[in-house]
Amino acid sequence: MKKRNLFYAQSGGVTPVINASAAGVIQTARRHRDQIGKVLAGQNGILGALQETLIDTSRESSRAIEGLISTPGGAFGSCRYKLRNIDDNRAEYERLIRVFRAHNIGYFLYNGGGDSADTCLKVSQLSKQLDYPIQAIHVPKTIDNDLPLTDNCPGFGSVAKYVAISTREAALDIESMCATSTKVFILEVMGRHAGWIAGASALAAQQRGDAPHIILFPEIAFDEERFLAKVDESVNRHGYCVVVASEGTSTADGRLLADQGDRDAFGHAQLGGLAPLLAGIVKQRLGYKYHWAVADYLQRAARHIASQTDVDQAYALGQAAVELALAGDNAVMPSIERRSDRPYRWRIGKAPLHRVANREKKMPRRFISKDGFGITPAGRAYFEPLIAGEAYPDYKNGMPVYTRLKNVLVPKRCEPWTQ
Amino acid sequence: MKKRNLFYAQSGGVTPVINASAAGVIQTARRHRDQIGKVLAGQNGILGALQETLIDTSRESSRAIEGLISTPGGAFGSCRYKLRNIDDNRAEYERLIRVFRAHNIGYFLYNGGGDSADTCLKVSQLSKQLDYPIQAIHVPKTIDNDLPLTDNCPGFGSVAKYVAISTREAALDIESMCATSTKVFILEVMGRHAGWIAGASALAAQQRGDAPHIILFPEIAFDEERFLAKVDESVNRHGYCVVVASEGTSTADGRLLADQGDRDAFGHAQLGGLAPLLAGIVKQRLGYKYHWAVADYLQRAARHIASQTDVDQAYALGQAAVELALAGDNAVMPSIERRSDRPYRWRIGKAPLHRVANREKKMPRRFISKDGFGITPAGRAYFEPLIAGEAYPDYKNGMPVYTRLKNVLVPKRCEPWTQ
Repeated sequence: MKKRNLFYAQSGGVTPVINASAAGVIQTARRHRDQIGKVLAGQNGILGALQETLIDTSRESSRAIEGLISTPGGAFGSCRYKLRNIDDNRAEYERLIRVFRAHNIGYFLYNGGGDSADTCLKVSQLSKQLDYPIQAIHVPKTIDNDLPLTDNCPGFGSVAKYVAISTREAALDIESMCATSTKVFILEVMGRHAGWIAGASALAAQQRGDAPHIILFPEIAFDEERFLAKVDESVNRHGYCVVVASEGTSTADGRLLADQGDRDAFGHAQLGGLAPLLAGIVKQRLGYKYHWAVADYLQRAARHIASQTDVDQAYALGQAAVELALAGDNAVMPSIERRSDRPYRWRIGKAPLHRVANREKKMPRRFISKDGFGITPAGRAYFEPLIAGEAYPDYKNGMPVYTRLKNVLVPKRCEPWTQ
Repeated sequence: MKKRNLFYAQSGGVTPVINASAAGVIQTARRHRDQIGKVLAGQNGILGALQETLIDTSRESSRAIEGLISTPGGAFGSCRYKLRNIDDNRAEYERLIRVFRAHNIGYFLYNGGGDSADTCLKVSQLSKQLDYPIQAIHVPKTIDNDLPLTDNCPGFGSVAKYVAISTREAALDIESMCATSTKVFILEVMGRHAGWIAGASALAAQQRGDAPHIILFPEIAFDEERFLAKVDESVNRHGYCVVVASEGTSTADGRLLADQGDRDAFGHAQLGGLAPLLAGIVKQRLGYKYHWAVADYLQRAARHIASQTDVDQAYALGQAAVELALAGDNAVMPSIERRSDRPYRWRIGKAPLHRVANREKKMPRRFISKDGFGITPAGRAYFEPLIAGEAYPDYKNGMPVYTRLKNVLVPKRCEPWTQ
């Protein structure tokens, strides 16, 4: 079998551990030099293939690749770019094949979420449709944890850990202050369509009455009166109330609560975010002093407090993707199969891409408490093992040492890409 | 010398390490049982003295007190409460003396910022004015780092570390995404009157061109045109721009930028925060896609990534306060004296309270770069040692183990307090 090169790219929003998957891919490929030539990484995801900006990872030292395991962000650049159907834009696919052929690429590994699984699936179909042999394997990744057919998605466990820790810490702060100052604290977290991240904040609680007192899930329609009643009850009972709200919190008619469409004094669009909106409702209706935080990128870049379980799984899935490619698989995604909760046991499985692409796995109702403001014991049993272990990076001068690659491009062999 | 009890209380906004100072106080007092009776902690700061809600710390185990060193928040509760002048509210001071006398309190240790130093100074004057012997020692604490006569303030180093790390991490995220998505990221940090916290974010940069590209200080008047020009330049040069903005950023006429006084669609007060406001300006004027984060309590509760230097200094100042009390001092504050930058050497000093109370130390102009958007090498030399070392807490099930005290109250001996 002639040695062929492997294309790897990162897609969509990055995570604290997507580079650990990259390390799993590259280190495993390097152990199979008899079958795999170079790992060429797309600069900015699939755009790197279209634009023929291919990073030669063989120029990176073993130490640099090892350093990826503890570096957040996307080391090769990511992108938000969705391939259209081959019937709508055949030229784009033909361009991909031209670049793959020019660089002897036989393996396509795409590291992303649901949209990226769709891209990967489309590429896997090129073999037949454009008569070019290529195996496409999807490496799962999304902090949203919304891919089907896998126990969880790399990136999620670390974000869950960050959010749970931040909630516990902020709760200690407000608890200290609530006698004379802030009574309500609202933390807005990511998760536009699924409440996994918000749900994981429940791990902050050790006993009944601990924060968070209210979790707002996209899966549960927001009811202002019920919300306010619960805030008031928490303040009366505990002296304070901690709310963790998913950015995707919506009303019964499906409207995102944060989408106000307002303008401020300067005529700028009202970009409020959900947390300040909820704080305003609390202030106006209940009169409580509040604080709010929006973690945004901080949560999905927080490699400094990544989950060891998450890092291990991210790496293992990168490794498994290469192994599946070598075993002749196509249009599949290595997955995490949970064998038991306590102790947490898992193994690598395999899912067909057509059953992964463009599907969202929401929080099951059985993980959400009856009142819709918390999680159940089943939910806790699901979440808990995913945040286990602290995968600390190295530090120098008080700051984490994160790896920056050289990212040397391979000389171009095709004509420039014009859309 | 008759043994007298020691009153200790926490005041104002809490920090990741204020409990380390509490541990320093209690452990040192326990080593001087011949001179100090019990350490009685005020529940919710000075209110604990006024309301005679005194926590008997002798009921806490050595292990629990040791656990305070790695626990954020204020273990005894804090408060925002400012004593008026004795001439304006003599009854309040007489009440304090009654409670102190009833509980044989001879030492008053108050752990707080500038306002609290004022409270402590007033109490120190009671000795003469109300003929009750008491020594008042202030234990410095404020994440704002704005107390004079000390190299820095406990709490600041850990917040600085959190903000610098978060900035470096978020920068890696946006750098990965900027080719096709977000171009500008804005992080709002605390510091209403002084830009110390915002300034510390500069430690995220390792080389020229690294994030943060723009720091907004309260000390530098905000100029929208200059700001936008710098954002645009950064995006053009680096592909993205990271802004760290102090919540105290103000216009030349002294108006807080975040104070818009607007109403949203529901008639709620516009609680926007500075970050979304700046994002709106960037979007409208430059058209760039943005993300923004407001760390709020997360930054000042983030014990999970506290600075070891900060923890050490917080503890040492608690210890020193007890030692000053035993040495007969009154109306003083133990301070940090910097002996050298690299290596960082410091020792405990002593500052008279009347020169500390109600004074704010702003960022000196020589720490801020000429263009007003960054820090100088002198600023970096100041900040860098304060974030050195990682004082990790213990973990269990993936979550930090934070200590919760029993907080048993001493039986009351006075009539109820009525204002």
